[in-house]
Amino acid sequence: MKPGRRAAQTLPLAAVHTDAIGWGENGVVRVLDQTLLPGEVRYLELRSVDAMIEAIRALRVRGAPLIGIAAALAMAAEAAGAAEGGGVGLTPAWLNGAASRLASARPTAVNLAWAVQRMRRVGADAVARGEPPARLARRLREEAQAIWDEDAAMCDAIGRAGAALVPDGASVLTHCNTGMLATGGIGTAFGVIHTAHRQGKGVDVIATETRPLGQGARLTAWELERAGIPHRVIVDGAAGWLMAQGEVDLVITGADRIAANGDVANKIGTYALAVLARAHGIPFYVAAPRTTFDRSLTSGDPIPIEERAAREIAGSIAGLSAYNPAFDVTPAELVTAIITDRGVLHPPLAEGIERLSS
Amino acid sequence: MKPGRRAAQTLPLAAVHTDAIGWGENGVVRVLDQTLLPGEVRYLELRSVDAMIEAIRALRVRGAPLIGIAAALAMAAEAAGAAEGGGVGLTPAWLNGAASRLASARPTAVNLAWAVQRMRRVGADAVARGEPPARLARRLREEAQAIWDEDAAMCDAIGRAGAALVPDGASVLTHCNTGMLATGGIGTAFGVIHTAHRQGKGVDVIATETRPLGQGARLTAWELERAGIPHRVIVDGAAGWLMAQGEVDLVITGADRIAANGDVANKIGTYALAVLARAHGIPFYVAAPRTTFDRSLTSGDPIPIEERAAREIAGSIAGLSAYNPAFDVTPAELVTAIITDRGVLHPPLAEGIERLSS
Repeated sequence: MKPGRRAAQTLPLAAVHTDAIGWGENGVVRVLDQTLLPGEVRYLELRSVDAMIEAIRALRVRGAPLIGIAAALAMAAEAAGAAEGGGVGLTPAWLNGAASRLASARPTAVNLAWAVQRMRRVGADAVARGEPPARLARRLREEAQAIWDEDAAMCDAIGRAGAALVPDGASVLTHCNTGMLATGGIGTAFGVIHTAHRQGKGVDVIATETRPLGQGARLTAWELERAGIPHRVIVDGAAGWLMAQGEVDLVITGADRIAANGDVANKIGTYALAVLARAHGIPFYVAAPRTTFDRSLTSGDPIPIEERAAREIAGSIAGLSAYNPAFDVTPAELVTAIITDRGVLHPPLAEGIERLSS
Repeated sequence: MKPGRRAAQTLPLAAVHTDAIGWGENGVVRVLDQTLLPGEVRYLELRSVDAMIEAIRALRVRGAPLIGIAAALAMAAEAAGAAEGGGVGLTPAWLNGAASRLASARPTAVNLAWAVQRMRRVGADAVARGEPPARLARRLREEAQAIWDEDAAMCDAIGRAGAALVPDGASVLTHCNTGMLATGGIGTAFGVIHTAHRQGKGVDVIATETRPLGQGARLTAWELERAGIPHRVIVDGAAGWLMAQGEVDLVITGADRIAANGDVANKIGTYALAVLARAHGIPFYVAAPRTTFDRSLTSGDPIPIEERAAREIAGSIAGLSAYNPAFDVTPAELVTAIITDRGVLHPPLAEGIERLSS
């Protein structure tokens, strides 16, 4: 790495972790359009639930924790707009409809459903108390902000807990994007890496490009560069070979949903990394906040796996017959430990997960 | 698959297997520029060794067997041109230089070095006998044609031997491109699939897209479509998940070089597929002609792994720090069997490989 690049390391953390989403004027939601990164940094101003649903489906905003936050902010923004116009329509039916449509925008990450459910309840309580529209809207905004702030704090806690697992000078392989572009804070798996880096551990990162949408090459590499963390991007198929060459000390990924037994749904390719890590005797860690656990599922089997359009793989290839599951499920027995905001869960994971929510 | 697509199945095999390379007028070599596929079918006319070196380096012509054939044809083409101009320069020094420059165009596949060495010997014999330039050129053309014809015949034999290993209705996962775009015939791994298909076994194919250059999505899918073989392209990271879902019955790949102990160098990602296949109890087959074996190497360790430019991964992402090894080595113990033109080699592979060349 050239000396000049190292200057990026001095970027203040605050500038890094507040970029992916924000409030604009008059309560609108500002969303960094991640489909344009790293070539262009452009913010969208979204005023409605439907606009946010489009942004979530198109992956303009993405990452399990962040889409939960974004959905909450969108409900608050739509309520603020309605309250300003006299409050027409801020009914329980609106709350239920908005929450339900947002929750179904993407099926795999549980954080989305969790966040809108929390917003719906706060709104329903306010309606039940007969609070005026402006007050309802304010409560929704406060709740959305709380969801966001709590996520940022959970990222910090995950970072601290996970950094303790990272040896000095470790080469860390990570998949997809789990940084400030995926959360309300410094990230989950990325937060661990970032924290270890800031502790002076001298880590370097191997980032899989994460086809088909290249979140590793487009987003994680961009974040790593801004944070001044040494890194290399590899094609997904090269991860096993690098493990065999002794170039990977540990693997850390995020999660979209974790079942009560510790099975982990995450970006397609995660399962293969877990099998490969096991075959090479390399620790495979998952980093996720409490909000990513779904204790209603006894295993990962029923987790819905989103199948996305073939064109994400095909690109400019006309008529390509492609199959594009966007997630996979890694069985608990391949997970060395789960790094949460409440500490590190070691096997048996089911026991730790049960304690987590008590 | 729509009924209309099935019509492609009636394409005559001859039309399929003579497309990737050919002779043009006046002894020039016609090369299908594979970097433009599948969007555009454009042939280049190459008259010189240097032009072929550029085409090989840029992967306009690729595939271990095919680059050997292409290099041989280029030596013949350059000799034909020189002979027509009076034969100046058709010296042993020219032969050695051309062979050596071609051999170093790409380091991993052994077929390239093998083919040019064969051409060099035939040329040197003709020079030693004092044969006139036109006759030397004719001998080189005959030798290049023989290398090509023999490869086509070896593909047929590999196809027959391998098809016997493919169960009816099997779902076959393959990597990179190993068809008529990679060989002088119907292909190696692809030849096995094609033969099984023509035998009415009702196979379907899962083709990994094979990043960074997309030989699976761009080339193998194109060949499968033309041959009327049902298929789906997946991202490389999805292969493990499909194995876990029971959607893969066997894996077949080609090879760029096979050591005396059965270690297999092949396109990056092959090693991970072999580890994943083993973890799921799925057979992992390698298909290759005799010319891909390098008995001078006792193991795969010394096989040179070509490292290609970061921009193949980065694409339009400016300044991306990427690491791009183009091949990996799969240890013999992960290989279920090697399908050769002389039959199927089962473990212990070293014994079969020794018999192969005797």
